[in-house]
Amino acid sequence: MNTLLSLPALVLGLLCCLPALADARTTSEILESSGPEHWRRPAQENLLYIKLPSGTVVFELEAGFAPAHVDNIRALVAAGYYDRSAIVRSQDNYVVQWANGGDPEPALGQARPALALELFRPRDELALTAVSDRDAYADSVALFNGFPVATDGNVAWLVHCYGMLGVARGAPDTGNATSLYVVNGHAPRHLDRNGTLVGRALIGMTHLSTLPRGTGPLGFYETPEETTALLGVRIGSAMAPADRLTIEVLRTDGELFAEYLAARKHRSEDWFVHPTDAVGICNVPVPARVVAPPAD
Amino acid sequence: MNTLLSLPALVLGLLCCLPALADARTTSEILESSGPEHWRRPAQENLLYIKLPSGTVVFELEAGFAPAHVDNIRALVAAGYYDRSAIVRSQDNYVVQWANGGDPEPALGQARPALALELFRPRDELALTAVSDRDAYADSVALFNGFPVATDGNVAWLVHCYGMLGVARGAPDTGNATSLYVVNGHAPRHLDRNGTLVGRALIGMTHLSTLPRGTGPLGFYETPEETTALLGVRIGSAMAPADRLTIEVLRTDGELFAEYLAARKHRSEDWFVHPTDAVGICNVPVPARVVAPPAD
Repeated sequence: MNTLLSLPALVLGLLCCLPALADARTTSEILESSGPEHWRRPAQENLLYIKLPSGTVVFELEAGFAPAHVDNIRALVAAGYYDRSAIVRSQDNYVVQWANGGDPEPALGQARPALALELFRPRDELALTAVSDRDAYADSVALFNGFPVATDGNVAWLVHCYGMLGVARGAPDTGNATSLYVVNGHAPRHLDRNGTLVGRALIGMTHLSTLPRGTGPLGFYETPEETTALLGVRIGSAMAPADRLTIEVLRTDGELFAEYLAARKHRSEDWFVHPTDAVGICNVPVPARVVAPPAD
Repeated sequence: MNTLLSLPALVLGLLCCLPALADARTTSEILESSGPEHWRRPAQENLLYIKLPSGTVVFELEAGFAPAHVDNIRALVAAGYYDRSAIVRSQDNYVVQWANGGDPEPALGQARPALALELFRPRDELALTAVSDRDAYADSVALFNGFPVATDGNVAWLVHCYGMLGVARGAPDTGNATSLYVVNGHAPRHLDRNGTLVGRALIGMTHLSTLPRGTGPLGFYETPEETTALLGVRIGSAMAPADRLTIEVLRTDGELFAEYLAARKHRSEDWFVHPTDAVGICNVPVPARVVAPPAD
């Protein structure tokens, strides 16, 4: 199967830490071999469902880096704040963003009106799966429970990869989660450590990525008619059980994921003639899937 | 204007090679100050116009890395081959791809039926603008006449950034440019040195990036009705002058671009509290614009 590999690639494959090439499994083969123990089911209390006219996007919230912001999101959902929101911005190869579309602004409920940026955690508190120490923006990059992380020394922060969910803000205001954005293109890494990240799209990202681009500055829509209303924003644990999706995310610890990561670095599919033997942090999108709930 | 900059960022700004922060211009300010001498007009013979139902995408062909493939594209355009083509694939955060949609296949005209991969040029033949020596996949990355390039030693190759145009192929076949793909998401850098790249979208990329995603494997559409016909594929120099667009691309040599690149690394806009002082190769999309032709 490796007849197209160049001699240097073969030598590299034999020298390095990967399984011998003849035995290397592809990423697809690895995923197909996975068992239930290789997947985790995010708690419904950490799933944010956004209903759009074309379908539902589900995000996993990650409160560890930004507890006050995630608390605010929960409070805004509970207050029904987002039910008056719409997607007001779709900038090509950058972000989509939603915000209050009504006037007057809905009540914030228990949410705090202003929050400080929440960006960092101590690296030594986190069980990280190393991805690479070659990164344009940080000393090293890793995965933490399925989320992309960068580190310098003992400081760790979440990374703006495709599908990441962040808290919009102006300058100098630091945002309060009433307006959120989602990365819809090449990772805008210059936003790292500048925008508070709170989660990642697991399911349905295409409902956001295919939206018409706004023609105003920064991809904002120029008329209310161009916006897309959010038809419902809910936390899974507050939804009727029948409406919840059972979602699984590939665990990023353990031997199977280590093999998967190695296979992303050294692609052994016949198509590749020059495997890169390297991978960037945003080129390891952690697989997620909807599964049927087990029969009781 | 820098009241939000943290003390470490201020110190870094003062220590490093950039203009003093108080004088630093933003990327917008730099572009606004540019004169005609800072822009180049690609020759119409290097512009590939793809007409879609929603509008036209214009690519600049770069024949230096892949002369035989670009020759084949010219021959296929001349033969009208692509006029029977359609977009058959739209994979989220990866690529869109078009191919012959007719049966039987149109004649190839003067195009060759098979080509070897064309990937590399000697680095010392190229006038490069260095971008970074921190890259997950290569020793260094740079810009060459507006195109993203990676290098190891004296070997240089084009990089799969957003909007780059490549030649589709199977395995082990190496393609002949009858089917082309365009990157529509985060740079799939593992395709570097595996797929022959031939150009970059200058104008109209949103007509491709917003296409509905295909629901089949690899984002292929599952029925002919889901595909999008190409309504015309032309080389600018063969078009009626009135139909051509005058397009300008920011020059990537010279002092103004050096300042622009520095400003992409150290964002001095008020919004940024932690400028990265770094930039990845695919986070420097080189600006292009349509201009009215000068009055004769």
